[in-house]
Amino acid sequence: MVYKLYYWDGIPGRGEFVRLALEEANAEYVDVARRPGGTAEMLKLMSDAGAGTIPFAPPFLIDGDLVIPHVANILFYLGPRLGLAPKDEGMRHVANGLQLTITDFVAEIHDTHHPVGVSLYYEEQKQEALKRSPGFLAERLPKFLGYFERILNQNPTGRQQVLGKVLSYVDLSLFHIVEGLRYAFPNAMRASEGRVPALIALHDAVAARPRIRSYLASDRRLSFNESDIFRNYPELDRQD
Amino acid sequence: MVYKLYYWDGIPGRGEFVRLALEEANAEYVDVARRPGGTAEMLKLMSDAGAGTIPFAPPFLIDGDLVIPHVANILFYLGPRLGLAPKDEGMRHVANGLQLTITDFVAEIHDTHHPVGVSLYYEEQKQEALKRSPGFLAERLPKFLGYFERILNQNPTGRQQVLGKVLSYVDLSLFHIVEGLRYAFPNAMRASEGRVPALIALHDAVAARPRIRSYLASDRRLSFNESDIFRNYPELDRQD
Repeated sequence: MVYKLYYWDGIPGRGEFVRLALEEANAEYVDVARRPGGTAEMLKLMSDAGAGTIPFAPPFLIDGDLVIPHVANILFYLGPRLGLAPKDEGMRHVANGLQLTITDFVAEIHDTHHPVGVSLYYEEQKQEALKRSPGFLAERLPKFLGYFERILNQNPTGRQQVLGKVLSYVDLSLFHIVEGLRYAFPNAMRASEGRVPALIALHDAVAARPRIRSYLASDRRLSFNESDIFRNYPELDRQD
Repeated sequence: MVYKLYYWDGIPGRGEFVRLALEEANAEYVDVARRPGGTAEMLKLMSDAGAGTIPFAPPFLIDGDLVIPHVANILFYLGPRLGLAPKDEGMRHVANGLQLTITDFVAEIHDTHHPVGVSLYYEEQKQEALKRSPGFLAERLPKFLGYFERILNQNPTGRQQVLGKVLSYVDLSLFHIVEGLRYAFPNAMRASEGRVPALIALHDAVAARPRIRSYLASDRRLSFNESDIFRNYPELDRQD
């Protein structure tokens, strides 16, 4: 079965959390919107008057007849199929809880440059962004990073991964969080990374995995840019 | 097995989506923080240095040894146990996708009064809230409400519920969304409800269910107030 991933072309975005899991598992998948006519196909699916399970927004995954939206939901579904989730059902909900905390973190990161509205440009809400970002960097960034550092340190089977003894999709997502934050807030991250050594070690270990390394070097991996969640606006970074 | 729900006392908040499911199923549960010493017990659990699966924030559910955070995750876990989720695994992910869209909607509703930062008071970000709210009411509110209206209308087995032929936890959550929006934005809702008749009919049908009616009349149901997600600030409502 070939998985079909639907997400906006041109940015890593929220789709990247799904791509990393598919790539690590060497799963067969199509990144639909990156093919000719793919974006039109995606938009048509989202306006299909006949289907009861149309998604509100990308990303969504199609597996046979099933249409599954939302990153955490897609990963919850794929996790056991790709060998990237705990075997125990209860622990899968623990993994999903961690992934949903990443979802919340991503939303707060996005809102540093979009505090007023998703349909306005950054330039139309720059003043409000300049008010929001310092609080995010001073309080929320260390709180979220520190939380995952603590989760890693408190894993009774080792701080190499967040859950149990083997890699899960949550670890892959944390890799992307560190990547994105380094792109968006290089000053703040330079000042923060020393306090979260286990998280940085996890990032480095994921980057060194053969399939991930190969993916990162391929043209399937899109570059960060200022249409994405993680945007490098120096005025929103820590001013040192 | 008695479920233990942990959520801030004094507001319906995000905990309410879980309470409605537990109440409709007549499940045995304790709303821990509403008991004497309960808030201290909740905060202690969240700072427990020994546990690997500490939640980032309330609400969380404890079932035996398992600690499950995040509303959608709790409901995904409870759904089959309470008879409030589809039997088919794939359809459970469809339900979870709808619930996660409700999660996003709730976050946007919250941010109408908190566009700049969670740790600031409303009064400290009122100007930004006055800028954000009109866009939310003009674009996002109709988009989300219209989406769920469409989901109801496109259910091949009937518009009485979002999925299949029986009530699910998603329906209960949509009831609370309508309740909360009516409290927070009465003008905007008066202008909107005519365009989403299936959603309003679903709200009314849930309100009339015997266990829900009994719950709403009990002191287990907390009132909306201005510490909650749904806040009645007339200046943020539609100005007619």
